[in-house]
Amino acid sequence: KIDGDRLWGSLMEMAKIGPGVAGGNNRQTLTDEDAAGRALFQSWCEAAGLTMGLDTMGNMFATRAGSDPEALPVYMGSHLDTQPTGGKYDGVLGVLGGLEVIRTLNDMDIKTKHPIVVTNWTNEEGTRFAPAMLASGVFAGKHTQDWAYGREDAEGKTFGDELKRIGWVGDEEVGARKMHAMFELHIEQGPILEAEKKDIGVVTHGQGLWWLQCTVTGKDAHTGSTPMNMRVNAGLGMARMTEAAHQIAMAHQPHAVGAVGHCDVYPNSRNVIPGKVVFTVDFRTPDLEKLTAMRTQFEAQAGEIAKELGLGLEIEPVGHFDPVTFDPGCVSAVRDAAERLGYSHMDIVSGAGHDACWINDLAPTAMIMCPCVDGLSHNEAEEISKEWAAAGTDVMLHAVLETAQI
Amino acid sequence: KIDGDRLWGSLMEMAKIGPGVAGGNNRQTLTDEDAAGRALFQSWCEAAGLTMGLDTMGNMFATRAGSDPEALPVYMGSHLDTQPTGGKYDGVLGVLGGLEVIRTLNDMDIKTKHPIVVTNWTNEEGTRFAPAMLASGVFAGKHTQDWAYGREDAEGKTFGDELKRIGWVGDEEVGARKMHAMFELHIEQGPILEAEKKDIGVVTHGQGLWWLQCTVTGKDAHTGSTPMNMRVNAGLGMARMTEAAHQIAMAHQPHAVGAVGHCDVYPNSRNVIPGKVVFTVDFRTPDLEKLTAMRTQFEAQAGEIAKELGLGLEIEPVGHFDPVTFDPGCVSAVRDAAERLGYSHMDIVSGAGHDACWINDLAPTAMIMCPCVDGLSHNEAEEISKEWAAAGTDVMLHAVLETAQI
Ligand SMILES: NC(=O)NCCC(=O)O
Ligand SMILES: NC(=O)NCCC(=O)O
Repeated sequence: KIDGDRLWGSLMEMAKIGPGVAGGNNRQTLTDEDAAGRALFQSWCEAAGLTMGLDTMGNMFATRAGSDPEALPVYMGSHLDTQPTGGKYDGVLGVLGGLEVIRTLNDMDIKTKHPIVVTNWTNEEGTRFAPAMLASGVFAGKHTQDWAYGREDAEGKTFGDELKRIGWVGDEEVGARKMHAMFELHIEQGPILEAEKKDIGVVTHGQGLWWLQCTVTGKDAHTGSTPMNMRVNAGLGMARMTEAAHQIAMAHQPHAVGAVGHCDVYPNSRNVIPGKVVFTVDFRTPDLEKLTAMRTQFEAQAGEIAKELGLGLEIEPVGHFDPVTFDPGCVSAVRDAAERLGYSHMDIVSGAGHDACWINDLAPTAMIMCPCVDGLSHNEAEEISKEWAAAGTDVMLHAVLETAQI
Repeated sequence: KIDGDRLWGSLMEMAKIGPGVAGGNNRQTLTDEDAAGRALFQSWCEAAGLTMGLDTMGNMFATRAGSDPEALPVYMGSHLDTQPTGGKYDGVLGVLGGLEVIRTLNDMDIKTKHPIVVTNWTNEEGTRFAPAMLASGVFAGKHTQDWAYGREDAEGKTFGDELKRIGWVGDEEVGARKMHAMFELHIEQGPILEAEKKDIGVVTHGQGLWWLQCTVTGKDAHTGSTPMNMRVNAGLGMARMTEAAHQIAMAHQPHAVGAVGHCDVYPNSRNVIPGKVVFTVDFRTPDLEKLTAMRTQFEAQAGEIAKELGLGLEIEPVGHFDPVTFDPGCVSAVRDAAERLGYSHMDIVSGAGHDACWINDLAPTAMIMCPCVDGLSHNEAEEISKEWAAAGTDVMLHAVLETAQI
């Protein structure tokens, strides 16, 4: 069994870096806070006797050697970056849980055949630079590194420049590593495990996603002196398209969601009819057919709304993954470990995207989920119990041990 | 007759300060650009032999002495501040048109009984610090100076601190001046004069306004893993309230308008359901009963929407004026001048708010409007012709001469 207190202590230590405004964290990718979080993780890895590798996307790989020089490593990991108003566990638990597994193996002096690696993937959240899971996506060959380097934040700064600025560009070629298997521990970020009173979610599938960035173009004009029939109001178009995205998701119940989280209005002046609005629709479902239908219906309805209001409309997909089926062998390893350890468990579909979803294409992969209070995540009030964190990490220890072989 | 080329030259010279991104201006109130615009205007006033007064709200008063030491001054003026993506004429024409009237009187060596003052009112636009017409409002006793000093921009900087920072706090007590009359020349900012092929709009009335700043509070949560029925989506609430504001304005046609120009979404992340949205509704009509009804209906409908979605809602009025009736004597002076000079003219209602609307409560006041291309304003592409500018300024010269007496 892992040391739940030690794990919790590390989680609380990491949470001191990039504190939020309401008890959570703002440690967005490629900020100075991200750099500080990486340095702390690196110092812990060195203390645990691990060798740190760093690739050209800033992905960190801390390796514990195996006994068989030919054997490919078993990976664990997730991400240390957070939302602008994020929680202390989303991503962090998967990285520091991996570190706790290593510390436990060290304590028990257990040698594995396969090396074991703990990974911190760069820019999982996708808030500052879309899309989410950017660096694991490049690792998995979903995007080119050049494209990723050119992604821009809201201020026009690029991913490549910012990675360099914080000093975390490595020399290892991204994606060159081969993997025996990968496990990602993560909080559920939804309400199911808590409602069902289960300690462990055995993640069998992941939802697919479309992020559709919409640029609606109207005509800046005076809110007072422009008659209603002369307006080309990009803000009204955004409002109608936001409602349309909601209605489309409602029409695909159950197991489908849709919302607009990001919205910038220009020039954003009380007495100017918006000349431009840029916003992003997020559609998800585990059903590929529904996922395609939601996108298609939204594009058609948004087009109608734009036409009716005389607006220009461009829709650019800025994030996409198909629904994922995780590796049955790795999934069984997780389920068996939970069973063996006596934790209550259930099979579950991941509502969020995760680095594991991309890595699943390269190597046998599975995820372990633990509950979170009220299903709340992407909120500074995100909370889990020490026991939940320990149970998930225990299960990861045993699944990894089975896979990495003693 | 005034010198149209000289006027145009000054307009183009001023437009070099705080250029926009698309041919217009970004010279927002109390920025370094505003300070530079003020300095240029002051240098022109000094060259024209005027004496500059500056009050504690930063309002500038450039005086040409009259022959009767007892006679109260006749005022002309408007504002030099612009929208973030504003035009070259909105406000500026009224200030530099006033200066051109003075230059013409100097050229012709005409002495008036009443002194004549050209004014630049601080923060007319209200974008950076709500409400609009802030400093003329304090001058007219509508707001206290303390309240005005405490108004905050989006970054939390206060009006008082910023006025001090740019070095334009005067020592004259705001509102201490008495006025014989005031005239404001302004572009129409709407389509009527151009459509009716009139050179001059004789402004008899002004629309009333409500600015209602709405703070909608939901719950930040993950867009992927939060089921639809667990969401408290502040963004969806904003979308529905934006549509409601539009529909309420449509239901009060003709002569009523409504829109949302300003909207900030928090935390504004693609994969976070908005936990908070702050936006401002702008309702206007020349009919006081309609104006009150639009506000009341919006508050009721927004309340319903919030209730249905489980959202918190606060509505704070951040701008208001009742419909205005300008002084019949001053209005006649404008109409008579247009008639005498042979310019085509029509009576018109101002769609926008103006400093003249507040001053009208203190002294006999009227406005002169000239057409603008396509009725477009609060847009960098705002345009007028040199002839339109000259005609409006000619009419102001003659109305002022009649009022200030030779
Ligand atoms: N786990 C997580 O929140 N990842 C961010 C990508 C997503 O929006 O699903
Ligand atoms: N003239 C003008 O645009 N003033 C700003 C205040 C308003 O929105 O009416």
